[in-house]
Amino acid sequence: MKININRLLSDIMEYAEYGKDDQGGVTRPSFSQADHEVRAKFIKELENMDLKVTIDGAANIWGRHEGNGNKQGSIVIGSHLDSVPNGGKYDGPLGVLMAKEIIKTLIENNVILDHDLEIVSFTAEESNDFNLSTFGSRSFVGKLKIEMLQDVFDSTGARLSDELIKAGGGLDKFPMMTEMGKNKKAFIELHIEQGQRLESENISMAFINRVVGTYRSKVRVIGQSNHSGTTLMEHRKDALTAVAEMILEVERHCQGSGSSVVGTVGKLTVFPNAANIIPGQIDFIYEVRGETEEKIQHKVNVIQSAWKEIASKRKVDVQQQIFLDQKPVVLDEDIVQILQSTAKEMEEPFMVFPSMAIHDAAHMAMITKSAMVFVKKH
Amino acid sequence: MKININRLLSDIMEYAEYGKDDQGGVTRPSFSQADHEVRAKFIKELENMDLKVTIDGAANIWGRHEGNGNKQGSIVIGSHLDSVPNGGKYDGPLGVLMAKEIIKTLIENNVILDHDLEIVSFTAEESNDFNLSTFGSRSFVGKLKIEMLQDVFDSTGARLSDELIKAGGGLDKFPMMTEMGKNKKAFIELHIEQGQRLESENISMAFINRVVGTYRSKVRVIGQSNHSGTTLMEHRKDALTAVAEMILEVERHCQGSGSSVVGTVGKLTVFPNAANIIPGQIDFIYEVRGETEEKIQHKVNVIQSAWKEIASKRKVDVQQQIFLDQKPVVLDEDIVQILQSTAKEMEEPFMVFPSMAIHDAAHMAMITKSAMVFVKKH
Repeated sequence: MKININRLLSDIMEYAEYGKDDQGGVTRPSFSQADHEVRAKFIKELENMDLKVTIDGAANIWGRHEGNGNKQGSIVIGSHLDSVPNGGKYDGPLGVLMAKEIIKTLIENNVILDHDLEIVSFTAEESNDFNLSTFGSRSFVGKLKIEMLQDVFDSTGARLSDELIKAGGGLDKFPMMTEMGKNKKAFIELHIEQGQRLESENISMAFINRVVGTYRSKVRVIGQSNHSGTTLMEHRKDALTAVAEMILEVERHCQGSGSSVVGTVGKLTVFPNAANIIPGQIDFIYEVRGETEEKIQHKVNVIQSAWKEIASKRKVDVQQQIFLDQKPVVLDEDIVQILQSTAKEMEEPFMVFPSMAIHDAAHMAMITKSAMVFVKKH
Repeated sequence: MKININRLLSDIMEYAEYGKDDQGGVTRPSFSQADHEVRAKFIKELENMDLKVTIDGAANIWGRHEGNGNKQGSIVIGSHLDSVPNGGKYDGPLGVLMAKEIIKTLIENNVILDHDLEIVSFTAEESNDFNLSTFGSRSFVGKLKIEMLQDVFDSTGARLSDELIKAGGGLDKFPMMTEMGKNKKAFIELHIEQGQRLESENISMAFINRVVGTYRSKVRVIGQSNHSGTTLMEHRKDALTAVAEMILEVERHCQGSGSSVVGTVGKLTVFPNAANIIPGQIDFIYEVRGETEEKIQHKVNVIQSAWKEIASKRKVDVQQQIFLDQKPVVLDEDIVQILQSTAKEMEEPFMVFPSMAIHDAAHMAMITKSAMVFVKKH
């Protein structure tokens, strides 16, 4: 029994049309017009397959293919349909559409499993304007609670709770997720590899035994806005030159750590942002990812101490607010073992390594046996 | 003979009511409602003083106090009435209202000069939404020509030529400015100091012998966007860490140059600007201001050569587009000499230094003897 690979590929191409952008990528953040359209399409397709569709509080979309009832609970397969700005067509949709293809193939071959088999598409897995990545799975497993989400707005002033309702979820439906979680027996997520390890070894797939931890902090650096002509260099408190040094410290301390630690400043905004005004304030987000909590904490500490010196030398004020402190996660050994045995039986080469990115599977590990499969990009 | 300082101060307070904003500053860009109101008030006051009022093509407002005719042409005093968003009450109005006070005092004392004495308020001196600072003086001296201004719009879609007509000017009145320029014999502008040189020496005034030049370039740095977790440090082409180094080179090379050179990155935008994406592109504007063209060019050259090394080391692409290359201007030595002698006679301490910001006086220097006086802020 094999899936229909051509049907899967054409499905992926079809989904990539939603939010297709000028630069040939896909821009489909959760709650965007393109996201609403792709949700409607996906739900309709699940219904056409006679799956029982549920939208939970976090607007995660679930479709259930009933088993024979011999074993209680569900095996869940899926990923996410949202994308970063100018993202690729595989990141997210591959896992969801492969899950759909698997269930379709089982139905076509009249296969009924002992467990129910469920497909899921999690909401807002990617970094988004609400600053809540893996929003759907974190909400589902109870890490994000109603009281933390009531007053969350994006940069345009849109309220998260309103956006959830528009997508069929809503904070009032959050308690139902705890109930839903109780009958999940396993979660497996298929995802393209975002790094270059499979690519450089030219191996098609990897089984993921761990997910690195991520520490993320909002930083505000306050200097003094002044006219760029009339303020001599020695009279300046330039927030941007201070931040330039801070960014280089993040890079310097994470360099040479191989795959055990990485550090990045990806988002940064300058105020007032005019050619003839010395920047008075910079807001940025920095993150450190690492294999173990100790490695992350060590890097954060050395960076903090370097920043302290910069702030004191340049007389700028540095404010910080940690908004993500995701611990490293060990995924399910049993599933990883089964995946390895199966690959050996099929005589397919594979690797086993940790994921450097957070995925919904890392959160699902809190409530059920959870694992991931990575596939090579090209 | 002395001016009435209380009358001047209350005049300044009165004008600061126009465009007064929530933060206690003045927001009065040219062509705004507040600007139209302040123009009407100013014109009315000039007429009440029996001055001959003219609005030229650039909507600059002129008022003439006739001399005895012994010497041909006019001595012009004035500045501008527009302000930046949340600007101070002195930047611009001080020079205009002092000119009004001087003429009022002469009239009250029945003083008739050999030359005509004119007051001027130039349009849109400040950076504005049409991207045309010192618009009024540049138009008056012929640097901005009709054909360059026909299709200029602001960010709201308003057309500059329409706004000029509403303010009493208009592109069809541009040729008259060339004629008007011919009989100007001198221009003197009084302005508050925007820097801290008078303040730190605690001296009340400075005579400005030069205006620094400004070199401004748009820079685009292209690296490679990648996932911040899965891309190991050694596989990155991070545009932001490259720009961090570039910004520090601007600072480093301009430091210690006193008032002879300053360098600034004031505007910067990150793409795609997401917490978990390594920045693939940074656009920024950098400027170097200097007393002489040689000093500016020297700094630009050393910065360029440092940037070249960074680009090559980090494998990023650096694109540049110069969009302002305002040469330094030498102001009129005779006027600066007379100002100095007068201050000495009055036993008033003073400084002589260059202006680090462009003013209308720098453009007026193209067609007549031109100079400036700065006064201390506090």
